[in-house]
Amino acid sequence: MTYCVGMILDRGLVFMSDTRTNAGVDNISVFRKTRIWHEPGDRTIVLMSAGNLATTQSVIGRLDERDLAADARTIPILQQPTMFRTAELIGRLLRDEIQRQDGAAGPQAQGRFGASLILGGQIAGSEPRLFLIYPEGNFIEATPDTPFFQIGETKYGRPIIVRAYDRAMSFPEAVKLLTVSFDSTLKANLSVGLPLDVTVMERGTMEVVLSHRIAEDDPYFHMISKGWGAALSSALRGLPNPRLDSAHWQDDGVGDDLPSPTAPAPQD
Amino acid sequence: MTYCVGMILDRGLVFMSDTRTNAGVDNISVFRKTRIWHEPGDRTIVLMSAGNLATTQSVIGRLDERDLAADARTIPILQQPTMFRTAELIGRLLRDEIQRQDGAAGPQAQGRFGASLILGGQIAGSEPRLFLIYPEGNFIEATPDTPFFQIGETKYGRPIIVRAYDRAMSFPEAVKLLTVSFDSTLKANLSVGLPLDVTVMERGTMEVVLSHRIAEDDPYFHMISKGWGAALSSALRGLPNPRLDSAHWQDDGVGDDLPSPTAPAPQD
Repeated sequence: MTYCVGMILDRGLVFMSDTRTNAGVDNISVFRKTRIWHEPGDRTIVLMSAGNLATTQSVIGRLDERDLAADARTIPILQQPTMFRTAELIGRLLRDEIQRQDGAAGPQAQGRFGASLILGGQIAGSEPRLFLIYPEGNFIEATPDTPFFQIGETKYGRPIIVRAYDRAMSFPEAVKLLTVSFDSTLKANLSVGLPLDVTVMERGTMEVVLSHRIAEDDPYFHMISKGWGAALSSALRGLPNPRLDSAHWQDDGVGDDLPSPTAPAPQD
Repeated sequence: MTYCVGMILDRGLVFMSDTRTNAGVDNISVFRKTRIWHEPGDRTIVLMSAGNLATTQSVIGRLDERDLAADARTIPILQQPTMFRTAELIGRLLRDEIQRQDGAAGPQAQGRFGASLILGGQIAGSEPRLFLIYPEGNFIEATPDTPFFQIGETKYGRPIIVRAYDRAMSFPEAVKLLTVSFDSTLKANLSVGLPLDVTVMERGTMEVVLSHRIAEDDPYFHMISKGWGAALSSALRGLPNPRLDSAHWQDDGVGDDLPSPTAPAPQD
């Protein structure tokens, strides 16, 4: 499996991906799942992948391949006029690759060649945009209602993002939030593993202000992991306990550093 | 889907289950998924179910059915000498029921009749025990290394239990922890829904000290839900942000109400 998150903020785009691929529990490897194309002043495009590695590598290979015969000035991924057209191109390549592999494998393929992608970036003259591309090649775009996308092993790390995401947050705050979300996932699922790749692109300048690999021994990651465990336990202690009494099971008054409920709790 | 958790504590056993069943998004109902058998002074047995409702109801029906022809003094679930034998009985009934349904439906059944169960309880003269029973009828028992079981939609609510579970915790603390775990799941997944059923059995006395339904409008639940969101945001704010600098991306010094990392962060 895999875990990747892309989120859109007022200040730009933030991405994080793990690097574990596995074909069975005894065949694990490290592969970078974030690919960045950056043309200073023109565009930055970030693509993250979950699913069949051969499929996603093949798609990226095609995006990168300069057509020497046609004397193309640049690679396909950099030829698109808009992010929407970039998403269309990638979606088409993804669908074609999956159909080709599925067709070759016959009826027993059963989705083995599938992959999902998160695409984000900005092209000069337009806004930053973020897309989720499905194995079928179609895609959806992030909106203010749904400002982040996850692919892969998404469930463990979702509650904290749902709770703490704020479009106005700073880049360091967003990277911290994603670090916590990944830490929760790593703790629960062996198919997601360190190192992690984090990418931050600033709105407007289109500069990649951070492209960092969080290694196994990263002190910041371990501090967050340990600190988050302590902070969660402390947050839980701060919430009031219920009474063990079905008729009067409200707040027992323990843990009072939180706002009281809007309605007064019944007392006996 | 469903979400059920059973955990074993020094003080006894704590269980929580949701009540939503759905056959498609336009066909949802409320069904109690926790069943309690209590013979004062002799035994308390709690069974929670996830999966095909017809299957689990059928299993419970058989556990409850007194054999009038054989003049049985009591129902099968109360005839077992130990919790282990109780788990064996339930596992056998579950496997037989699933095989019967799958056999009748033919090859297209594809696990549609499957179900998993969490069984916990205590019989006079022995310790409280907790089991996870698989659709195949086999089962595993909770140990100090794995002191809780989840079935159904388990992932969203797992990180907080992994972090905060403590065998020595009080019943109110454990109920609060499960309330938070369920709240995270409810927020993320429509197939898990209020009301929730919570059951607490005290070790030794085998008394059910709490059997409570948390309704849609339960003020305690809503206070925990709201308070947990605020507490998470505050906990996240308290953690130090990284620097946006790959070479020196440690702690920027913001958020200092947490223990510092064991190794001093590099400074520039």
